[in-house]
Amino acid sequence: MPQVSVRGKLIEHAETVFRRQGFNGASVADITNAAGVPKGSFYNHFKSKQELAAEIVRRYSRGTDVTMLAGEGLSAVERLRAHFAAQASRTSSTGVEYGCLLMTMASEGPTVGDEVGTVVRRSLAAWVGVLAPVIEEGQRSGEITSQEPASDLAAFLIDAFEGAGLRGKATRDEDAAMRSLNLALNAIKA
Amino acid sequence: MPQVSVRGKLIEHAETVFRRQGFNGASVADITNAAGVPKGSFYNHFKSKQELAAEIVRRYSRGTDVTMLAGEGLSAVERLRAHFAAQASRTSSTGVEYGCLLMTMASEGPTVGDEVGTVVRRSLAAWVGVLAPVIEEGQRSGEITSQEPASDLAAFLIDAFEGAGLRGKATRDEDAAMRSLNLALNAIKA
Repeated sequence: MPQVSVRGKLIEHAETVFRRQGFNGASVADITNAAGVPKGSFYNHFKSKQELAAEIVRRYSRGTDVTMLAGEGLSAVERLRAHFAAQASRTSSTGVEYGCLLMTMASEGPTVGDEVGTVVRRSLAAWVGVLAPVIEEGQRSGEITSQEPASDLAAFLIDAFEGAGLRGKATRDEDAAMRSLNLALNAIKA
Repeated sequence: MPQVSVRGKLIEHAETVFRRQGFNGASVADITNAAGVPKGSFYNHFKSKQELAAEIVRRYSRGTDVTMLAGEGLSAVERLRAHFAAQASRTSSTGVEYGCLLMTMASEGPTVGDEVGTVVRRSLAAWVGVLAPVIEEGQRSGEITSQEPASDLAAFLIDAFEGAGLRGKATRDEDAAMRSLNLALNAIKA
């Protein structure tokens, strides 16, 4: 089924192209070149660059490794740290200049269009949603001393991690994200 | 001197266009339309979109209001908070969807080119550089209890603020940046 294969190649390669170049900086030709498929084949599989980008963001978000958040025998803070470390290695495995797809798309604001923007918003909300229960557990056990709402603290961890990730993308500092995440984690715990 | 006026209009309007749309999402036509000048006049004043973008980032960075950091009669933490509040109101005065120019450019990574990338890196380093002495002062006085290097803590405050600003850009939450900045400030102080 060659049609499935072309679609698969487009999805496989579009993530790194979008992460490196952003939505507006990535042309359909950049994506088909990276995928090694004819440019003309793109529109057999996707209505638009937006449709592909929305699909890529959905997959990227679903690919968030939440197994660390349920780690047996680890404290809430240790699980949060392990979760972000897994995210950091996912990002840096392709080189720090690629950065996180969610933030790259978020930064382009309204120009990514409603379809992509909605997926980015939902993905950020889902990430807050999986972190908050772990933070609540840490608050109940006394390991996390901050009594701010768990969802605010979850967003704060994401912000410190992602803000540093972007700074690292600009300055080619691949340790920036975990350095700031650790400062944020140390800040909310006992 | 109409030539100066066209150049001035381009500089005046390019900042908001780049902030809203990013470097790659903003065409020369978008900028000349926003400035209300003929498209053909652009290249009389700038060699390229990159040259204009580098100039805009330099001006944006120089426009960082550091007066709050020297505020008489305020503690180090109070001055840091006032500084970021001034930055937040600078950003939100044009609407949260415009976001911070530095992060918007940083997220586009290598596609903004070396000229713009270098100015972004220098601007981020300069921002860390003006915050660090205030943090050191707070560490000496005991107001800031974290003993991490002041430049790391400065970067951490920027990351929390900018990461949240980008999240707010995606979710249209204009209070996100100051909420995370306040969590970060509360975290490093006594």
